[in-house]
Amino acid sequence: MTRIFTRLDISEADATIVADHLVEADMRGHPSHGVIRVPTYVEACRAGRINPHPNIQVVVDNGAQCVVDGDNGIGQLTAYRANELAIERGKQYGMAGVALKHSTHCGAMAYYAIRAISHGLIGWATTNAGINMVPTGGTKKLVGNNPFAMAVPTNREWPMVLDMATSVVAGGKLDVARSKGESIPLGWARDADGNPTTDPLAARAGSLEPVGGPKGYGMALMLDVLAGVMSGGRFGAGLGALGSGQFFMTIDVARYMPIDEFKARMDELIDQIQACPTAPGVNRVYVPGEIEWDQYAQRRRDGLAVEESILASLDAAERELGA
Amino acid sequence: MTRIFTRLDISEADATIVADHLVEADMRGHPSHGVIRVPTYVEACRAGRINPHPNIQVVVDNGAQCVVDGDNGIGQLTAYRANELAIERGKQYGMAGVALKHSTHCGAMAYYAIRAISHGLIGWATTNAGINMVPTGGTKKLVGNNPFAMAVPTNREWPMVLDMATSVVAGGKLDVARSKGESIPLGWARDADGNPTTDPLAARAGSLEPVGGPKGYGMALMLDVLAGVMSGGRFGAGLGALGSGQFFMTIDVARYMPIDEFKARMDELIDQIQACPTAPGVNRVYVPGEIEWDQYAQRRRDGLAVEESILASLDAAERELGA
Repeated sequence: MTRIFTRLDISEADATIVADHLVEADMRGHPSHGVIRVPTYVEACRAGRINPHPNIQVVVDNGAQCVVDGDNGIGQLTAYRANELAIERGKQYGMAGVALKHSTHCGAMAYYAIRAISHGLIGWATTNAGINMVPTGGTKKLVGNNPFAMAVPTNREWPMVLDMATSVVAGGKLDVARSKGESIPLGWARDADGNPTTDPLAARAGSLEPVGGPKGYGMALMLDVLAGVMSGGRFGAGLGALGSGQFFMTIDVARYMPIDEFKARMDELIDQIQACPTAPGVNRVYVPGEIEWDQYAQRRRDGLAVEESILASLDAAERELGA
Repeated sequence: MTRIFTRLDISEADATIVADHLVEADMRGHPSHGVIRVPTYVEACRAGRINPHPNIQVVVDNGAQCVVDGDNGIGQLTAYRANELAIERGKQYGMAGVALKHSTHCGAMAYYAIRAISHGLIGWATTNAGINMVPTGGTKKLVGNNPFAMAVPTNREWPMVLDMATSVVAGGKLDVARSKGESIPLGWARDADGNPTTDPLAARAGSLEPVGGPKGYGMALMLDVLAGVMSGGRFGAGLGALGSGQFFMTIDVARYMPIDEFKARMDELIDQIQACPTAPGVNRVYVPGEIEWDQYAQRRRDGLAVEESILASLDAAERELGA
């Protein structure tokens, strides 16, 4: 992947950051945000929708509150930089929020939140997404299923991590059902006429259902306030393929209590959950992020299997782009 | 209400803060968090579960990060104080987070978030709640349907406000169904054996369903990390009738962009939503908090109707407590 991105005129250092993100998404069991995305990014770079040499600048610097202009660089890079700033300033000021405008699709939000952990910070990240949900009571798509992630330090090998979209299911699940020739449950999506549908193809042309109806719609709108409205970038219906925004926040736990005490308390919370009696057919009760960590650890040990068709698409992209 | 609370040995100034909160909840159309609660608070005060003279102290002061000890005072008062500190420090530092421990049930979270608005701040508030949800895949209640609220300044008469529990529906809806002799839809709750139920009485003995399954469970746990684990108070299964925790956060919009520009952008977002074509039978599409504002404005104009039985319970409490 690094070779492919450098052939798109992205520097090797920047290409490595993007590739690391994509591999981690696959390792954590979220292939929809992993290596499979490369051809899309290649196409976006070649079509000029992604700037290979972005001049990523801190355009507002108030210490713990900053705005970064991503200059339409590849999202995993612009978001990485803004998130690093949120981590640095969070350590310095105890709490920081960095808004990023003129970014592009930046992958899995958990990636950013997790980066804060090793600094003793709680990490939090959100992005606005392409318009794919209808406000409660309406018939027109006006809000994205804007996701957010939060990661919390623990004494375990793994942090506690929540990463969720504000729709009932992520759009990728429709594609999975379609590729298997399966129908989807009622309640996941609507068709283009606004009627509930079990057809994944009709759903893709329609809209995703917000999780919990007005709750998911409300959350999506509030996340756009931080990522879109307050960043100075695009928001709401103004959001197209270009110019998404993000918001990265960090909280230094040690400003509230000694980090060791906090982690011990987190362990107590995790112990309670892990000791929960299970429903019939359920092996064990998980803490948010634990399933992803299990997959990560297993792939770290056994290697990451990537479908041949995806590897072939990487080879094809590399050949096409030349040396 | 102020008279009743002062007869419980709460100072008049403190009693006024509590009464103001309860009336605002009724005005905004959330009677479950309003005047109806008074007899419960009276009982809790008389049983010694609420301390009428709390020594509310800032026990950790790192400027933008503070921990407040509520000394088991009545929740609307302890939370008010901690939230005022979050507002003051947010203006000073651009962003602040105040954790509150040894608090009690503190009412509607929107009340706190809304207080930040007039200072040009985004307000955010959460509390942990009594254990009433089962982690995904489990059979034992281990997490509360912890709610949160976020309020954002706009140019309208009203801020944009989201206030939601992390369950499919709030527990109060079960009581409403029961009092009307109605059944509840499948998917709202489970009975004590962990089976889905349509009986509101069985549901009250059982558990509430988290909104979006693992999403609601994950959010509830993360909110407890802020309100319970990081405040130094009770959390998870350790949370009983006493000692809930809260977390109040503020963000000074002007540190990101001029407040007028921000509000103009918010208005654009609101315009988009309000212009959304409506589904059959729907009058108009609302922005979060708009319905509550409509109710508030109408009651401001026409007066607030309180059920006679509630007024009678206030009279009874006052008589019982003597002069």
